[in-house]
Amino acid sequence: MSDLVIRNAIVVTCDVAGTVIPDGGVAVDNGRIILVAPTTELPSDARRVVDASGHILMPGIVNTHCHAADSLFRGLVENLPLEPWLHTVWKAEGAILNPETSYLGSVLGFAELLLSGVTTVMDMFWYPGETVKAARTLGMRVATGGIFFDPPGVTGDDLAGRIAKAERFLEEFGEAGDVFPTLMPHGTYTVAPDNLRAAKALAERYGALFSTHAAETRAEQADVTSRYGRSVIRHLDHLGMLDRRTVLAHCVHLDDEEIEILARSGASVAHNPMSNLKLASGVARVPDMLAAGVNITLGTDGAISGNDLDMWMALRLAATLHKGVSGRADVISTGEALAMLTRNGAAALDASDRIGSLEEGKFADMILVDVKRPHAVPVFDPITHIVYSTAKSDVRHVFVGGQQVVRDGVLTRHEIGGTIEAVELLAPKIAASIA
Amino acid sequence: MSDLVIRNAIVVTCDVAGTVIPDGGVAVDNGRIILVAPTTELPSDARRVVDASGHILMPGIVNTHCHAADSLFRGLVENLPLEPWLHTVWKAEGAILNPETSYLGSVLGFAELLLSGVTTVMDMFWYPGETVKAARTLGMRVATGGIFFDPPGVTGDDLAGRIAKAERFLEEFGEAGDVFPTLMPHGTYTVAPDNLRAAKALAERYGALFSTHAAETRAEQADVTSRYGRSVIRHLDHLGMLDRRTVLAHCVHLDDEEIEILARSGASVAHNPMSNLKLASGVARVPDMLAAGVNITLGTDGAISGNDLDMWMALRLAATLHKGVSGRADVISTGEALAMLTRNGAAALDASDRIGSLEEGKFADMILVDVKRPHAVPVFDPITHIVYSTAKSDVRHVFVGGQQVVRDGVLTRHEIGGTIEAVELLAPKIAASIA
Repeated sequence: MSDLVIRNAIVVTCDVAGTVIPDGGVAVDNGRIILVAPTTELPSDARRVVDASGHILMPGIVNTHCHAADSLFRGLVENLPLEPWLHTVWKAEGAILNPETSYLGSVLGFAELLLSGVTTVMDMFWYPGETVKAARTLGMRVATGGIFFDPPGVTGDDLAGRIAKAERFLEEFGEAGDVFPTLMPHGTYTVAPDNLRAAKALAERYGALFSTHAAETRAEQADVTSRYGRSVIRHLDHLGMLDRRTVLAHCVHLDDEEIEILARSGASVAHNPMSNLKLASGVARVPDMLAAGVNITLGTDGAISGNDLDMWMALRLAATLHKGVSGRADVISTGEALAMLTRNGAAALDASDRIGSLEEGKFADMILVDVKRPHAVPVFDPITHIVYSTAKSDVRHVFVGGQQVVRDGVLTRHEIGGTIEAVELLAPKIAASIA
Repeated sequence: MSDLVIRNAIVVTCDVAGTVIPDGGVAVDNGRIILVAPTTELPSDARRVVDASGHILMPGIVNTHCHAADSLFRGLVENLPLEPWLHTVWKAEGAILNPETSYLGSVLGFAELLLSGVTTVMDMFWYPGETVKAARTLGMRVATGGIFFDPPGVTGDDLAGRIAKAERFLEEFGEAGDVFPTLMPHGTYTVAPDNLRAAKALAERYGALFSTHAAETRAEQADVTSRYGRSVIRHLDHLGMLDRRTVLAHCVHLDDEEIEILARSGASVAHNPMSNLKLASGVARVPDMLAAGVNITLGTDGAISGNDLDMWMALRLAATLHKGVSGRADVISTGEALAMLTRNGAAALDASDRIGSLEEGKFADMILVDVKRPHAVPVFDPITHIVYSTAKSDVRHVFVGGQQVVRDGVLTRHEIGGTIEAVELLAPKIAASIA
């Protein structure tokens, strides 16, 4: 007898073939999907049977760029372009962040993500151990690890200190099934070439992922080019940072050759359209990157830029923004957009064998999306519906490894009221930090 | 004793001064606001007292461009630019629409709008009497009236027939408090100059509003210019169509002089960013129009283009898209964006004395927005919060004329389940209509 059967759903598997089962479901055992099939072919004798009538069943969302704990600073610094904005943000972070507040902010941000159906997130923050602790509090998967940042930053470590902490993280979490260990240098304008190399060497030694900000703004491109004689992507390529286990956040300002370098290297791009719009960074060349074969994934960035962590907004923007800006209604198909939300994110984390689609053998990371709401009917095509009509509040149930972590829009493992109270208690101090 | 007091809210009045009351509320009598004040100054002895702790109280949203009944066709026709898309849409409309299905679709669309806090909508559709009936079923206000469209269209009327129907509508609803009668010629490429003049003459005779599509695409601009020797806005101006009681939907492709014409005329623009992006129409020059003094309002367009009727999405896009495209993080302030959602919409309907802000003497059209959710805390500034962090599902309670029409996210006057079932029964016929 299997642990769980979900039946009577519209199954959108997000597999490469684009398989949709109009009336189907999954069987789950020991945290893994053991069968994806029409309802009539599913066993009826599981330990738990869920009737998913009126819902789409699809894989959990993969968010490839986030700073969840920055949700503490949501709406604090507004209407500035990236560079002056970042300096104010860093001032607030320096005054407020410690392991306890980072954990608090991470729980807040991850709660928002998990409630909206994100089951795996790549998160860059100062205390990665606290980040993992927060993800485990709620029951989600996280890609994270040691930060590299040449200035003292929040934690005040020098390079040796950062390397030591990164290694301790890798030793502690390198084998955990719910953690994708990642080396996280902040960017080419904040981390010197040798230090980037040190981070990449650690990633290779431990078989970990590698992620950094890249080509977010024109100013960053100019700065890096003037310092190193190469644009950001060329610089990263020259240093040997780009391969299939590398995730570059943003990549807004690229020339044709940089796009080719990305495609050739196999590195993935985390497209963060809301953050890029709001900070006036620009509009990434997503159709051109897709045409070149770059693996495009989606991220929310932190709520301090966004100002929320809404992957459904990222999806909608990815699917529409580039049509509007290019004047071509056929760029970015619904299938391509859906892949960015799910399967491509799994590939970016080198985890296509475990997450990103509903297929036998993969983790049972799954969400149920209500399609019986006034904004959600009729449904002529489920993939079109997911891409263009679904909102975060339509996600009603979330499973990670077959365990239900959201039930009817409520977290099952953590009472969020206490977190919200604690954040509100901290808010006056946060406001004062930039006064 | 007043009918209703709402207290303990964060009051965002949306008045011209930008008044926010951190702990306050309103008193309502006979459908009108009689007091907006801090909680300590509100009467405590109303017939009903609502404790709005943890909520923002703000005016109901005004959506200035919609085709609600087109929600029947949500997701049916995808990834085409406007002109071929429109021809497929018209084919489906011709096969499906009659007074009954128009009413059904309008109830569906208006339910989505009202649940998200829209209390007044300008809606263009084939059977305006059914549109009013649908709005009244749910308890919302609507600006609508006779359509002008030179081809036979859905109803098959000639000009005399359209005029006669428009007059009957004006006679029946001209004095209704919940209806803003509007003459609605489709556009300059589908309505000949004399027929536009006939519509405007009727509007003037009855003191009604006037709304049409304008300058949505480059192709439309080229078509109208080649037919009439003037671009769309110049053509409308030349025909005497532009004044303070005119609402032009889209206005994506304008030159500097057209923007000046709009500003000088006092006509309002309904900015529909999601529809414009998805149909690849382009990005309207909103910062330039604002600088010129044009009254910018927000619309959703129909769900057949959008693919939903989410004014919060329109707001977020209006506030961020133009930053990203222009590269200027300071264009469109949060105050300007909030005005587009509320007060400017009221001005477009020549109804600033009745709706669009919480001020004494105005209709008690109000919404309560939950700010105690993981994606909604902390709140450093309520206006920033509304513009950048609020989602449609945060709207919990909606009042129109002091009557509660949405309670805890549920319509109070209509059981929506029956509507959803009826739409789903119709869906196979809709799908077949374009097969």
